[in-house]
Amino acid sequence: MAIKVGVVGYGTIGKRVADAVAMQKDMKLIGVTAHSYSFNTEVAKAKGYKIFTIDGDGDLKLNGIIPDGDINNLLEEAEVIVDATPKKIGKENIAKYYKPNKIKAAVQGGEKHEVTGTSFVAQCNYDEALGKDYVRIVSCNTTGLCRTLHAVNEKYGISSVHATMIRRGADPGDIHHGPINAIVPVLEMPSHHGPDVQTVLHNVEIFTTALSVPSTLMHLHTLTVDLKKKANVEDVVELFRNSTRIRVVRNAEHLRSTAEIMEFARDIGRLRGDMPEICVWKEAIGITANTHNKLLYMQAIHQESDVIPENIDAIRAMTGFKDGQKSIEMTNESFGIK
Amino acid sequence: MAIKVGVVGYGTIGKRVADAVAMQKDMKLIGVTAHSYSFNTEVAKAKGYKIFTIDGDGDLKLNGIIPDGDINNLLEEAEVIVDATPKKIGKENIAKYYKPNKIKAAVQGGEKHEVTGTSFVAQCNYDEALGKDYVRIVSCNTTGLCRTLHAVNEKYGISSVHATMIRRGADPGDIHHGPINAIVPVLEMPSHHGPDVQTVLHNVEIFTTALSVPSTLMHLHTLTVDLKKKANVEDVVELFRNSTRIRVVRNAEHLRSTAEIMEFARDIGRLRGDMPEICVWKEAIGITANTHNKLLYMQAIHQESDVIPENIDAIRAMTGFKDGQKSIEMTNESFGIK
Repeated sequence: MAIKVGVVGYGTIGKRVADAVAMQKDMKLIGVTAHSYSFNTEVAKAKGYKIFTIDGDGDLKLNGIIPDGDINNLLEEAEVIVDATPKKIGKENIAKYYKPNKIKAAVQGGEKHEVTGTSFVAQCNYDEALGKDYVRIVSCNTTGLCRTLHAVNEKYGISSVHATMIRRGADPGDIHHGPINAIVPVLEMPSHHGPDVQTVLHNVEIFTTALSVPSTLMHLHTLTVDLKKKANVEDVVELFRNSTRIRVVRNAEHLRSTAEIMEFARDIGRLRGDMPEICVWKEAIGITANTHNKLLYMQAIHQESDVIPENIDAIRAMTGFKDGQKSIEMTNESFGIK
Repeated sequence: MAIKVGVVGYGTIGKRVADAVAMQKDMKLIGVTAHSYSFNTEVAKAKGYKIFTIDGDGDLKLNGIIPDGDINNLLEEAEVIVDATPKKIGKENIAKYYKPNKIKAAVQGGEKHEVTGTSFVAQCNYDEALGKDYVRIVSCNTTGLCRTLHAVNEKYGISSVHATMIRRGADPGDIHHGPINAIVPVLEMPSHHGPDVQTVLHNVEIFTTALSVPSTLMHLHTLTVDLKKKANVEDVVELFRNSTRIRVVRNAEHLRSTAEIMEFARDIGRLRGDMPEICVWKEAIGITANTHNKLLYMQAIHQESDVIPENIDAIRAMTGFKDGQKSIEMTNESFGIK
């Protein structure tokens, strides 16, 4: 029987999760929420998704959108909610809606780890989410760090990591944020990403620094990893090639920048031009020549989409699907990820 | 008797060097070169600088600029040339003009170290340039790395450094280069900056990675330094505060980004809004809590101006002024650097 899923919050993440749920053979999308009218609600309607109001029906009816009910109707039908509302609202919604209605919920990386007690990246700790009522999908940056560091840690063991995140200033459709001509460092040391990685990779010592730049397409990470065992570049390339949801991209293909990766994603027909895989540049993987135990690499993170497969796997884990590897394969197949 | 200086190449660096030479009590600007007409030549004329043609007089006369002679006239009068021509032209000019005319020349960081055999950052290795015929002023990024790493190395000793350079995509007046919406990594590992630092700080082990972003104002570096001695944050802040041509900037002052640093430079009346000091963010200085021997910091580099004081000091060193500390003080005073 299909898992009945509702999506609360229909922005950058919510609309992608809804489409992904609708694509899964073992899931049924009950509907999505809306509290005001926009092209997002028009697109949801056109896709045949039921629309449930939350906090009143705003200007929906005024614009010809007749809601299919309110959030209580959604909660009656769904057995799991993916909550993709803005930071802190997920926590409020657990208290206000999901707990009183005894409904499971996955929240996003804007919430604190303590909100659920379980933070999730499928290929790192699927089993931790098994049967849980509330699970937190970590942020796009943390997801990207966890995917590649987990692979490195399994094979070589990690003594310590320093990662710098060069973050896009705003999403492509965001007209409010910046910068448009500045580099803006995060002036706390370390940035919050390091501790956040440890909510998934519990024993990895990591400190992170971050800054924002005037670009909308992807984040870029540069990492230095002190390894417990010696490594060579070829083996690390193979390791990443053989790890799920990681894509090794090459200068030779002219995938030399975040812009070219995004154009490639559009060319291969990905919905919205998304690239949920973490892209690691082959030519930017290096090992220190003298000691062979310090690994460097650079990776690009599509902030709008890398967490979407994680949400799908979290739904399965929470509702008791025990085989994490199988869940990842099912999700990947629906996304066209090899 | 004043040192007679000519400037060959009157672009971003050349025009600033000319102004800086004109400000020194112990120097005399003989003139600058031009090979075509632009607002740069108009400004040079308005400042009363003699203009010498190189490779013909292009469209200068057509636009009402009557040259004061050609490069041979400049070479007759000057005893030192600062060559600020584009990459590789400096090398050609040594062979074509400076060597045959037995005239000393400082070239810029676009040239290879081997062109002069001496690479220069005043506070690191002034004495190496003493009496030399040809000296290379390293690039803006290398200058920035050398200034702060030299201070750290003197006090704590450096085992190794990893630096990532987030580079501005183009200078403010450059309408040809980009990116305008991408993050572009340097896909060679390590980037050339590490070896370049070693041309000045000969024994520092350093590897560097780099990328370009859509901003014009400054570069930003993030550094991880493994120290030989233990350190604490307060002492590192004091070390940078007490080192010349380094400015500790603070979040508390709202100097939180490259844009705000540049606005500050304009507010304090610096010519062209320049900031030749390397700006280190106080709040981004960190020491690992467990071992006390890994130092992190972030710094901003004004790519148009940080090498200008270096050019001035190089002129003095090449012409035999023995007291490097005194030269630095004289130069700093003329720039208003404390």
